[in-house]
Amino acid sequence: MNGNSLGPLSRDVRDRVNAVVASEWGEQLIRGWNSAGWYELPGRLGDKIGQLIGAKPGETTVCDSTSVNLYKAVSAAADLRPDRSKILSEPRNFPSDLYILDGYTKNSALDHRIELAERQNLVDAIDDATAVVVLTHVHYVSGAVFPMAEITRRTHDVGALIVWDLSHSVGAVPLDLNQAKVDFAVGCGYKHLNGGPGAPAFIFAAERHHAAMQQPLSGWFGHANPFAFTDDYVAAEGIRRMLTGTPGVIGASALEAAVDLFLEVDLQEYFQKSQQLSEVFQQQVDQECGGFGLELASPPSVLERGAHISYTHEHGYAIMQNLIARGVIGDFRAPHYLRFGISPMFLSVEDIAKGVEVFREILTTRSFLLPEYQTRQAVT
Amino acid sequence: MNGNSLGPLSRDVRDRVNAVVASEWGEQLIRGWNSAGWYELPGRLGDKIGQLIGAKPGETTVCDSTSVNLYKAVSAAADLRPDRSKILSEPRNFPSDLYILDGYTKNSALDHRIELAERQNLVDAIDDATAVVVLTHVHYVSGAVFPMAEITRRTHDVGALIVWDLSHSVGAVPLDLNQAKVDFAVGCGYKHLNGGPGAPAFIFAAERHHAAMQQPLSGWFGHANPFAFTDDYVAAEGIRRMLTGTPGVIGASALEAAVDLFLEVDLQEYFQKSQQLSEVFQQQVDQECGGFGLELASPPSVLERGAHISYTHEHGYAIMQNLIARGVIGDFRAPHYLRFGISPMFLSVEDIAKGVEVFREILTTRSFLLPEYQTRQAVT
Repeated sequence: MNGNSLGPLSRDVRDRVNAVVASEWGEQLIRGWNSAGWYELPGRLGDKIGQLIGAKPGETTVCDSTSVNLYKAVSAAADLRPDRSKILSEPRNFPSDLYILDGYTKNSALDHRIELAERQNLVDAIDDATAVVVLTHVHYVSGAVFPMAEITRRTHDVGALIVWDLSHSVGAVPLDLNQAKVDFAVGCGYKHLNGGPGAPAFIFAAERHHAAMQQPLSGWFGHANPFAFTDDYVAAEGIRRMLTGTPGVIGASALEAAVDLFLEVDLQEYFQKSQQLSEVFQQQVDQECGGFGLELASPPSVLERGAHISYTHEHGYAIMQNLIARGVIGDFRAPHYLRFGISPMFLSVEDIAKGVEVFREILTTRSFLLPEYQTRQAVT
Repeated sequence: MNGNSLGPLSRDVRDRVNAVVASEWGEQLIRGWNSAGWYELPGRLGDKIGQLIGAKPGETTVCDSTSVNLYKAVSAAADLRPDRSKILSEPRNFPSDLYILDGYTKNSALDHRIELAERQNLVDAIDDATAVVVLTHVHYVSGAVFPMAEITRRTHDVGALIVWDLSHSVGAVPLDLNQAKVDFAVGCGYKHLNGGPGAPAFIFAAERHHAAMQQPLSGWFGHANPFAFTDDYVAAEGIRRMLTGTPGVIGASALEAAVDLFLEVDLQEYFQKSQQLSEVFQQQVDQECGGFGLELASPPSVLERGAHISYTHEHGYAIMQNLIARGVIGDFRAPHYLRFGISPMFLSVEDIAKGVEVFREILTTRSFLLPEYQTRQAVT
């Protein structure tokens, strides 16, 4: 129950990685850039992810980490609104997003400053001074979903641009970036897309921005003609200018095999199953685990949250360690959140029921108080 | 003969990738961050590479691409010399390095400009206005080696800092960054280190700079306490602040298995064999392939070049396609360079002799004039 943090391995991904390593690299060697299609991998995979997020072909590419891509997207957007001062986000956004905004505003030649507005004040904070709004569509703890189209419309109404982080959205909730007229977006490959630990991220830029957009990490894979080896940078046409260095072929190939599975699925059924499982989990936890100090920390309606659900408990850390030791793998988020991913790609109603049963046992027996569940791990 | 561009697969790397995918990810799932040591992977692998470049433990880490890391290193160095105007490099440096300098200087809040000085004028161009010198130690075409200690000393004499790109040096020539008092360095994992296509890169920062250095791509993996999930960025102590987003575990694990092989080798013998093979190749090409319009485009002394050697020929592209079709895989670099990697890790004197024999046949029969060798590939 952790596909929101690290999705599991599929046979297809395992087999694809073996083939890339043993055959494409092992036998084709450097020729793989042409013969195995490595050179086209970022754009080809980007377009596949594009089908999950409502992008047109040529608007999405795969490279780098979400944080690096966010730097590029924010910089590209801010560069298109140089005369406005404000980059707007919210407190308790995914921390790396705030850290990247900090690094960008401190180091950029443009004179932007960060403003963080609480969610209930956010729409009012989008004003004439706003250059860029940077938000995470599905919150990493609560799973609360921003109304993407409405916030994007408000952003455009004041003449600003928007960057959405889709890390907890892609593969979790239906997305239609072009219908919502989104400007830029980034997202993660290793959560609900099941691309593997540290899988590369993606970046989306609406076609209308392609001609004017620039980004500072202008490496050779974003050059119009990387193999001309000229001294001067000339940005490639289209989304390819968002690339920087040589893409990690093994990691991107794993992600491609994982995304290919989504393209075989009826996405409407997939998201229906997701909501059904999430409701079942919520109801059973209510019923079986109520009265033990557990509080729901997510929107109570499944329509208002992504494919994970969080609870608070004063012994949250120990309870999660106990759950993990019993084979129910969710995760803990400081200071006291228990977070459960509910991915329809690999979970069934029976899995959910088994998970809740273990949860109930742990809460009723208070086994989480045992010392072995108190020890902090490096990554929690 | 292309280990300078993409080193080959070893059994150890293949087995390690299988284990990471099938067992660490497939079975341990999210727990792998602790139980399989993924969280420590960037620093652990950085320290292993550190043994090949003369770094102390804690001075090197593995993340992102060489281009992204160069952006960080240049920014960190320039930030330590804010009152000087010049970032110095050379024309025909590896293009991505020049493109990154272009992106950095155009977007940075600091007022630096790029100056490119031809190699014969380079030392004189290092002057009181110089903030940072950015050079590639072993040239990607000619293989010519810069005198690292001498250039670094000159750079420090005028009060500037230096960033070395070691992409064609690491695993190719002996390196001792601390003896040369190098400030920052970056390098590539997929060339002589044999880490796989698009393997992650490394970044080195001398310990004396750790306390003061900053870099703009301040993502959560560079935070002092990433799992505290606080809104404010506080840089980690030491080299870890050079990290940005979640590292690609599969790609970095492949690289680690490849680097582990270097740690089993007597490096002095390894570099001796490298020079011996390079001399044998050069002599045999002289002897067998002379008089066919081939010109050496590398320093004539093996002591003055890295572990690759280049020639020019007016039909360079077609000749290389012909060589590749015959199983002698070097590469072509526009406009007319034939480049051969001479890695002692997997080449023998017999391999070299076989390669030269094919080269001779192609030149004597002029088979490269056949139309099938004229067609350009996407990646050349």
